[in-house]
Amino acid sequence: MRAHEEGSVTGIPYFTSLSSSIYHLKIALLTSSSSSAMARSKALQTNLDVDYVISYHFAKTDKAKAIAQFDKLCEALASVGLQTEVRDGGSHSILLFVRVASDEHLFGEVYRSRVRDWIHGVRSAAPSKITRESLESEPLYEAERLRIIYQLITNPPSEGGAGITPKEGEWENVKSIFPLHDHVYNKDWIKKWTSQYFLTTEDLDDIRNRLGEKIAFYFAFTQSYFTFLIPAAGFGLLSWLFLGSFSPIYGLASAMWCTAFTEYWKQQEVDLGVRWGVKGVSKIDVRKTEFEPEKSITDPVTGERVGFFPASKRFQRQLLQIPFALVAALSLGTVIATCFGIEVFISEVYNGPLKSVLVFIPTGILTTVNPILNTLLTQAATRLTEFENYETHGAYEKALTQKIFVMNFIMSYLAIFLTAFVYVPFGKVIVPYLDIFNVAVRPFAEDEKQLHLDTTSSSWSINPGRLRKQVIYFTVTAQVVNLGMELVVPYLKRRGFAKYKEMQSDRAAKNGGAAPSPTANDPPEDAEFLDRVRKEAELDFYDVTTDLREMVVQFGYLSLFSVVWPLTAVSFLINDWIELRADAMKICVEMRRPTPWRADTIGPWLDSLSFLTWLGSITTSALVYMFWNDHTGPSGSPSNIKLWALLLTVFFSEHLFILFRWGVRIVLSKLDSPGLQQERRERYLVRKQYFEENLSQLQHMPRLSEKGDDITRTSLEEEARMGSLRDSTPEIRFWQRQRGWRESAAVAKKLMERAKNESVVEGKKEL
Amino acid sequence: MRAHEEGSVTGIPYFTSLSSSIYHLKIALLTSSSSSAMARSKALQTNLDVDYVISYHFAKTDKAKAIAQFDKLCEALASVGLQTEVRDGGSHSILLFVRVASDEHLFGEVYRSRVRDWIHGVRSAAPSKITRESLESEPLYEAERLRIIYQLITNPPSEGGAGITPKEGEWENVKSIFPLHDHVYNKDWIKKWTSQYFLTTEDLDDIRNRLGEKIAFYFAFTQSYFTFLIPAAGFGLLSWLFLGSFSPIYGLASAMWCTAFTEYWKQQEVDLGVRWGVKGVSKIDVRKTEFEPEKSITDPVTGERVGFFPASKRFQRQLLQIPFALVAALSLGTVIATCFGIEVFISEVYNGPLKSVLVFIPTGILTTVNPILNTLLTQAATRLTEFENYETHGAYEKALTQKIFVMNFIMSYLAIFLTAFVYVPFGKVIVPYLDIFNVAVRPFAEDEKQLHLDTTSSSWSINPGRLRKQVIYFTVTAQVVNLGMELVVPYLKRRGFAKYKEMQSDRAAKNGGAAPSPTANDPPEDAEFLDRVRKEAELDFYDVTTDLREMVVQFGYLSLFSVVWPLTAVSFLINDWIELRADAMKICVEMRRPTPWRADTIGPWLDSLSFLTWLGSITTSALVYMFWNDHTGPSGSPSNIKLWALLLTVFFSEHLFILFRWGVRIVLSKLDSPGLQQERRERYLVRKQYFEENLSQLQHMPRLSEKGDDITRTSLEEEARMGSLRDSTPEIRFWQRQRGWRESAAVAKKLMERAKNESVVEGKKEL
Repeated sequence: MRAHEEGSVTGIPYFTSLSSSIYHLKIALLTSSSSSAMARSKALQTNLDVDYVISYHFAKTDKAKAIAQFDKLCEALASVGLQTEVRDGGSHSILLFVRVASDEHLFGEVYRSRVRDWIHGVRSAAPSKITRESLESEPLYEAERLRIIYQLITNPPSEGGAGITPKEGEWENVKSIFPLHDHVYNKDWIKKWTSQYFLTTEDLDDIRNRLGEKIAFYFAFTQSYFTFLIPAAGFGLLSWLFLGSFSPIYGLASAMWCTAFTEYWKQQEVDLGVRWGVKGVSKIDVRKTEFEPEKSITDPVTGERVGFFPASKRFQRQLLQIPFALVAALSLGTVIATCFGIEVFISEVYNGPLKSVLVFIPTGILTTVNPILNTLLTQAATRLTEFENYETHGAYEKALTQKIFVMNFIMSYLAIFLTAFVYVPFGKVIVPYLDIFNVAVRPFAEDEKQLHLDTTSSSWSINPGRLRKQVIYFTVTAQVVNLGMELVVPYLKRRGFAKYKEMQSDRAAKNGGAAPSPTANDPPEDAEFLDRVRKEAELDFYDVTTDLREMVVQFGYLSLFSVVWPLTAVSFLINDWIELRADAMKICVEMRRPTPWRADTIGPWLDSLSFLTWLGSITTSALVYMFWNDHTGPSGSPSNIKLWALLLTVFFSEHLFILFRWGVRIVLSKLDSPGLQQERRERYLVRKQYFEENLSQLQHMPRLSEKGDDITRTSLEEEARMGSLRDSTPEIRFWQRQRGWRESAAVAKKLMERAKNESVVEGKKEL
Repeated sequence: MRAHEEGSVTGIPYFTSLSSSIYHLKIALLTSSSSSAMARSKALQTNLDVDYVISYHFAKTDKAKAIAQFDKLCEALASVGLQTEVRDGGSHSILLFVRVASDEHLFGEVYRSRVRDWIHGVRSAAPSKITRESLESEPLYEAERLRIIYQLITNPPSEGGAGITPKEGEWENVKSIFPLHDHVYNKDWIKKWTSQYFLTTEDLDDIRNRLGEKIAFYFAFTQSYFTFLIPAAGFGLLSWLFLGSFSPIYGLASAMWCTAFTEYWKQQEVDLGVRWGVKGVSKIDVRKTEFEPEKSITDPVTGERVGFFPASKRFQRQLLQIPFALVAALSLGTVIATCFGIEVFISEVYNGPLKSVLVFIPTGILTTVNPILNTLLTQAATRLTEFENYETHGAYEKALTQKIFVMNFIMSYLAIFLTAFVYVPFGKVIVPYLDIFNVAVRPFAEDEKQLHLDTTSSSWSINPGRLRKQVIYFTVTAQVVNLGMELVVPYLKRRGFAKYKEMQSDRAAKNGGAAPSPTANDPPEDAEFLDRVRKEAELDFYDVTTDLREMVVQFGYLSLFSVVWPLTAVSFLINDWIELRADAMKICVEMRRPTPWRADTIGPWLDSLSFLTWLGSITTSALVYMFWNDHTGPSGSPSNIKLWALLLTVFFSEHLFILFRWGVRIVLSKLDSPGLQQERRERYLVRKQYFEENLSQLQHMPRLSEKGDDITRTSLEEEARMGSLRDSTPEIRFWQRQRGWRESAAVAKKLMERAKNESVVEGKKEL
């Protein structure tokens, strides 16, 4: 009863209790190894003014060199006004705590950042030249402050920073630079989120203030997507109940929904960009420190010597993408197609013993081989992109994202494509050839007959449920598994690592040379805090693009294949409600606090989104044409499909899509949004201020119109003077015939009166 | 010999003499009615400091009202610092000469304009608040000065102008406001252009300085197009010689060329926009004075009361576009299709007498009906667009251009579409039904047989040359006729008008009430000048969009149908060389000097260009598929065309086009251009200036790194003070353990030395 009362305050008792218990579970997971929960919670209360922690590992370096380099590190930090404190980090690492001691350098960086923004149109007004004033009128929010300090630490000295580049070059020992979690805030955050259905714009503002715009954009995207999923899920449910699969009505609605969402999000990006004051930041080039120039040239713009890498040479290197794409497509494709073939063979040709077990062989192969291949290919893609030697972070990320997207596309969608466009239409032609896969099950077969399709009996027919089953697998089972993996694997990893360390120090203790526990030297009052920091230092790095990719891939299923199973959106709706909260928890609990970065877009993934929407218009129409007829699909022989009709359907659908997209863009461009309004208001205020300052002078001037009247002594003298100049130039003579507007008007009056009255008479007649 | 020598200086004797004689002819045309060529040429030398001439017509208004309104006009002009002079304009009109007398108002307008530019990102730096200084550092060029004065005259008083709106509302009597031609410059201009093959960027700069960016953009576009035509013409000639019509190689090259040109021009627009300092001006909304708000609301941005017209109501009105488009398509389509049918009937079915004469009937119908329909529909489109009640000029122009483009599309291309996609493939099915057109020739036929196709004898077959003939007609004959019309019609119109006026005054003289000649009151020394101004006042208004439309329509033939006749580009190359010069002459001689406007694009025509390129990829591939087989096209019955193959060709070709366009965009975005470089340089300089001013302060600050060393009295005192605060807060205690970076480094050194040396040992083993 009491629980019910508590719940009824928010109206959502179930979710509240579910989610808060999830949170408590997570916090418990994090703190499970702590002996004193009380003391820990105290250590979680404060960050002791620490801005950043630098984790310095010296295990693999010569000791003298490591000491010298650490000296250099401290000096570099001090030179940009950062105060340092050193503590033992354990396992051959040192924790270097950093905080801003001298505001001047911070102000310098703020100023540089704001001038850069203003030049690129991110800010509408130039920053005040006195930075202190400028900062008083526009104080930094937390994420901005952290970003600026990070830049102070990592920017090259020529740009006013300390030049510390983690894991690179001479700073190889600097394993990470990270801010500390704000656990009090994090707890409130998760609690709040898990107790509400929808995230408001203020919730997103909050993320932006804490974690920076880049992460906030991910959450904003997922939230927009979630909101759009609600009507899609509703319509999907109705379709499933009343229209069934492959309904052209659902297909049309789905394609329109995808288009509307993609275009809406593009608008929304602009809006949020303005709201967060970051519109245009993606145009500011951030140079990569890893860029390796071939030669140095004089920049035509700045006149400075800069590194140069010829575009033609980069293009040659980019050509390597072709073999890479081929290798990726072939290797992934072969694995997937082989498993697909084996699976079809076992489930539909093979009829020997152990069939129900053997049918999992392909899943087994996929589960083991695919992640390995994926890791290998991702590494290759990263290396290849590095080899392409981009000058800016933006170009690098774009190139890498494209490669990753291709790989993900193959892994995620190829199996369904094979079923829909190869297995079903050409099944009768192809399946007999699947005999080659009998090697996989030969040991289990009792006689040869079990291994061959009896084509003569024609007992075999296409399994029409296969396509739907596959879609359901990818849109429900795989999503749930994925979500679970995301939460559980890092936890297991962390536990395993702790266990490993424990064992190692045990072993070391047995060997006699007991490693000194890092806690031994901790001042007692800092001990808990340091323990917490050491744990945070061991957490994983949070890469928001991974989460973003997941969402884009999920959107792809909806766009490409949801016509097969209209409940797809329902599954995603539920999944994403949890996903949003799980990601928040992941950031708070399982990852180091990320460095806040700015962004005004979800970046290259936006292109992937547009591409998937486009492709969706093609696949959906093709699926509808091929399968709608009898709700089971073509019977397996290609002759039943009329190619011209299929092509006509696709052609028509694709152009309908392009037309519709154009219409949506026009409608959206006409709508006003808070962000655009804010932008206009800012512009208006700046302009008004300028106008008022300048034009107030104009008001006090005498108007020329009054000049004609006052025939004063001055004007008469002027006239006399002008008279004496009468012969000077034709211009003066032309312009002095009439003095003032009254004389002009008088002359005109005379002319008009003298003119023949014809027309006026005519006009009167008409009356 | 002498002539040859003269010519050899420029190396192009023929064109020089040809073109200069054209120019002399034109000048002669203009001045032919003058009695004294000598005196006239003197009047052409100077504009007597006149900035603008206002032509005030009072024939159709009540005289008293006209006088009162003129009074108001003069006062309004004087109130914004403009000096006025009145002269008789003849035929119930008054010429009001205007020049800037008080700089303050002009400066005010310049300042307003520059602040607006800066807010919209057109200028990178804010204008100096003291306008006089700002103008000294950036003087106005001629077109800018004229534009600013025009705005001073026409802007509403609330924005600092005189509020004179020609031909509208209370200013209905103000027929036109125009600057005077600079005949000395014009003569040099034409002479220069007619004696050079190519126009340089400096030539375009010159137009921009004189006539403003909007007209300069037209010339720049045509010049770019001309330059691109050179390789296209060369390849076209080779194709014509060696590949023949409907060659897939030519089709591919043509589609690629069109795409490359369209994308190149988009880049070029940006480049020129930066070069001319107008990049972004199209984003500045210019409000239409004709806008009729439904109600007035409080602007959420400025807080002022502004007119409001609900978008939903505008959308309802825009729905009228559907019936309009249907009417336009049906009426134009019916006329064209009927004429097409009659022509086919006469030339291929009818075999009675007078066939060679009767075959011109459809051309006759088209020549008379089409211009009438065109005028009616253009008027309807204009009214419809006005009814749609747009708030800004940009939106209005876009809406109007779209309608005009649809009409032009039907008029220009429908006939060829009918031949290619209806007549040729379905000829045998359709032609027998053309019997209905026998009414057109029945009176001439001798017996019924001549009116009917003898289908049984099957003597009739598709005329394979028809398509080519038609394309040649549209791309050569029609272009030449058009060019001629453009030059001759205005001349005839002007002559006719002069004749009419002469006759009218003769008649008036006969009736006794001889109208006083306007020249009677002219001061003798101004007489020639005034005569010239009266002539200029009677010239037509120059609308650059007409010329632009012509170019876009021409581009359409190239993109859509040039595969039919590869020499198309050669014809256009010649035509456009003349067109560019003819347009320059037209502006100088046959039109009033246009008010210079700014622009950073060719506007909505760019969309038309993209659309035509896209459609070209479809028509070209379809034509190649249908006609390539035997160089004559399908035999007339639709069964020969395989729909699936046609669709596959089109589908493939369209996606190849989209892929290629994507590639071109990427390549172009990588290229550096002078404009982009200039933009970067400007940004860099502004930023550098800001940085230097601010950061020079930072250099003088002591570095924290030095702080650790000097254990002075102060620092010792500080330490003592800190010690007393020891119990204060955990933060202070945490951060005071190490003082300065040297202490941090020392602590770290100790930690590192104490750490077990395992890994280092391992590392050495590996060595």
